Amino acid sequence: MDTFDLIVIGGGPGGYLCAERAAQAGLGVCLFEEKKLGGACLNEGCIPTKALLNSAKLYRHAIESEKFGVTAERVTYDHAQAVARKDKTVKTLVRGVEATLKGLNVQIVEAAAKITGRQGEHFAVEAAGGAYLAKKLCVASGSETVIPPIPGLKEALDGGFAVTNREVLDLKTLPKTLAVIGGGVIGLEMAFYFSSVGVQVSVVEMLDKLAGNTDADISRALRAECEKRGMAVYLSSRVLEVAKNALIFTDASGERRELPCDLILLSAGRRARTEGLGLETLGVETDRGAVITDKYLCTNAASVYAVGDCNGKSMLAHTAYREAEVAVHHMLGAKDEMRYAHIPAVIYTDPEAASAGLTLEAAMEQSFRAKAVQVPMRFSGRYLAEVEGGSGFCKLILDEAANRLLGVHLYGPYASEMILAAELMLDTELPPERLKKLVFPHPTVGEVIREGLFQL
Amino acid sequence: MDTFDLIVIGGGPGGYLCAERAAQAGLGVCLFEEKKLGGACLNEGCIPTKALLNSAKLYRHAIESEKFGVTAERVTYDHAQAVARKDKTVKTLVRGVEATLKGLNVQIVEAAAKITGRQGEHFAVEAAGGAYLAKKLCVASGSETVIPPIPGLKEALDGGFAVTNREVLDLKTLPKTLAVIGGGVIGLEMAFYFSSVGVQVSVVEMLDKLAGNTDADISRALRAECEKRGMAVYLSSRVLEVAKNALIFTDASGERRELPCDLILLSAGRRARTEGLGLETLGVETDRGAVITDKYLCTNAASVYAVGDCNGKSMLAHTAYREAEVAVHHMLGAKDEMRYAHIPAVIYTDPEAASAGLTLEAAMEQSFRAKAVQVPMRFSGRYLAEVEGGSGFCKLILDEAANRLLGVHLYGPYASEMILAAELMLDTELPPERLKKLVFPHPTVGEVIREGLFQL
Repeated sequence: MDTFDLIVIGGGPGGYLCAERAAQAGLGVCLFEEKKLGGACLNEGCIPTKALLNSAKLYRHAIESEKFGVTAERVTYDHAQAVARKDKTVKTLVRGVEATLKGLNVQIVEAAAKITGRQGEHFAVEAAGGAYLAKKLCVASGSETVIPPIPGLKEALDGGFAVTNREVLDLKTLPKTLAVIGGGVIGLEMAFYFSSVGVQVSVVEMLDKLAGNTDADISRALRAECEKRGMAVYLSSRVLEVAKNALIFTDASGERRELPCDLILLSAGRRARTEGLGLETLGVETDRGAVITDKYLCTNAASVYAVGDCNGKSMLAHTAYREAEVAVHHMLGAKDEMRYAHIPAVIYTDPEAASAGLTLEAAMEQSFRAKAVQVPMRFSGRYLAEVEGGSGFCKLILDEAANRLLGVHLYGPYASEMILAAELMLDTELPPERLKKLVFPHPTVGEVIREGLFQL
Repeated sequence: MDTFDLIVIGGGPGGYLCAERAAQAGLGVCLFEEKKLGGACLNEGCIPTKALLNSAKLYRHAIESEKFGVTAERVTYDHAQAVARKDKTVKTLVRGVEATLKGLNVQIVEAAAKITGRQGEHFAVEAAGGAYLAKKLCVASGSETVIPPIPGLKEALDGGFAVTNREVLDLKTLPKTLAVIGGGVIGLEMAFYFSSVGVQVSVVEMLDKLAGNTDADISRALRAECEKRGMAVYLSSRVLEVAKNALIFTDASGERRELPCDLILLSAGRRARTEGLGLETLGVETDRGAVITDKYLCTNAASVYAVGDCNGKSMLAHTAYREAEVAVHHMLGAKDEMRYAHIPAVIYTDPEAASAGLTLEAAMEQSFRAKAVQVPMRFSGRYLAEVEGGSGFCKLILDEAANRLLGVHLYGPYASEMILAAELMLDTELPPERLKKLVFPHPTVGEVIREGLFQL
């Protein structure tokens, strides 16, 4: 029986960083991962999608740059090669995580862990026949794809006609036509990928907008971009059935439609994955499967923490990283707490979308005296130089009563890398008058934030 | 005789923004520009170079993306088309500046202005035969290319064998070989452009490093990148003569070399352009041609301001913008002052380089107890996904005594758009412990700053 200071269940961003930080602080740590180190983010999410999207962007550059003076003939896209490059990237990163943890003497157990209860002042965990004890426990079991009860879907998933975000990344060949169930972030990124490399893509979304609770103007712009690229977008639509070689749904007008396709991508959301962990043996409270946590990432059970997707708070890898740090700080008695207000969210479509803080709608709901200004990215010289006929913009949300920014929403190139500055503006609560005194580098697309500040 | 509240001499970034902000505040403004609105930045600097560099990047994407699954045949680069696209961008932006100023009722005089002295409580200016008076004066006369006294250079410039940063942007055809005098920012950006599109480029630099006072590691990385791309880089070299179809110089070992070439680009620096303005009629003090200003952009002569390159402080368009605002604030009696400490500097090579704050060398010289950490960008998943075999890095300079950042130096993709966040970190003087609590969006290249913070 091995005894540790800390047991971490799950080796995704929340779990591996929790183990890393705890081990750096001198704790003896054991980490359990039943699939692959790196979790969904590294193996089936953030990283592989970005690798594929980068290949797709390069392909589009090769075929669409005539206006910029570049022409090419017989441009070909080798999806299998892009997947191989993606696999190489993922392997490098997974090896990096493993090396870091081993270098810190974290014991890694590649097996499913099951909490069996308390033994004295320890928590007991079983995995692959072994028994493990620790004084502290961090649950970082991640999330899983929601499989809605659509007739024919389970059979299609089993037979390969339908895939989730995991299998879609390992396709050896491209389908001719793809139907995407769910126009959220994952569905959109994959829709843009497949559309960019020549697949005829349709997106069927239950809500009346794309990209979930993203800023309404960004949502509209993304829809327009999808349609500009020849994708079919069906909003307010309900999937009725997965038939043989077709997706059956009712569209916004209530009409029944049959969408023939070669492949279906299911991206109808993710939910916390906590079943079968044995949380009930410790009396850990959950809400619809998500572990309930406070701002220290503590659960209701003393010395039991939950970080990352399994607490259902934000379902983003970078949230998980930070939560892991807050949890370890709490374990060590160091002062820290989690703040969710300004966590950035990025959609790696092309153009990209990135947000931090509140949308105007959310600010209104929360009774802020909120004001929005929207500035086209055409105000940026770099944007004009690099983009032909783009519709990018920057939208700032101001709390007029407190004279501080509530949200920043960006739609355009580099949005993903610009949003950190926006987050810092929100997080420091500096008034716009102070932010206007920053010297924004010229020429950058980021200058649109400055333009926005001057229009508030 | 027209009388105004403010006369602005020069229509570049400093001048036009000064006119814009003053007019927004209700001042009656007259602006003089003898060439083109937008100044060097818009017409012969920042914007046109970025447009061309973007075309070059797209060209390289088309020919170098095989590892990412993209192949193309017969990829051609049409320099004339890229120049035409560049011209279109510049025209759009110049029209934008003009429309903004006219919308604010700024009187624009397209002629050289000459200060003739004081008339009562007014300053008097003559241009194209007209006489103009104003109570306040802002000099924004910009900078000009330094033409060193190299034998044969003037003749080569007259004959077209040598060009400056202005003419090089309007070449109708590409030379086969290009020799660049001066490996500073302008020289490097153009060297990368021409090399990317197939020109054999050599760079001859007087100093023992490229890119002036940029961080030493970035300078070395840029040199390595130049050489990887097949450029010849001669440091510690002194140009002796511009001969017929050749550049003659002594290299670092003192050996005399003759470099045959089709074209020479002169980029040996810029200097404040104030000669012939009539500043002496007001007793305005200058130092080697640059107008001496304080932190309010005031000169020694009451109500006379100088913003942008002509004060020689920073020679960057974004500095000029901010200086213009500070000057207008001073005119209006509003509290504000210029701070130069964290102004970002970007080099739009590929990879890009961007810095804010002090280099380690400068920090040491200023007697800070300084410490540097350097993190490879390979630590970023996005970087690994998008870049094959890259050597990008992030370098943080810490003041160990005060526990605050002194400088951030980035070398890699997106550096230009990431540096704003770094500047904000420096400008707010938040301690590293606080910055570590930011949630850096994942996956972004910007996460290397976070990695760096954790290694301090």
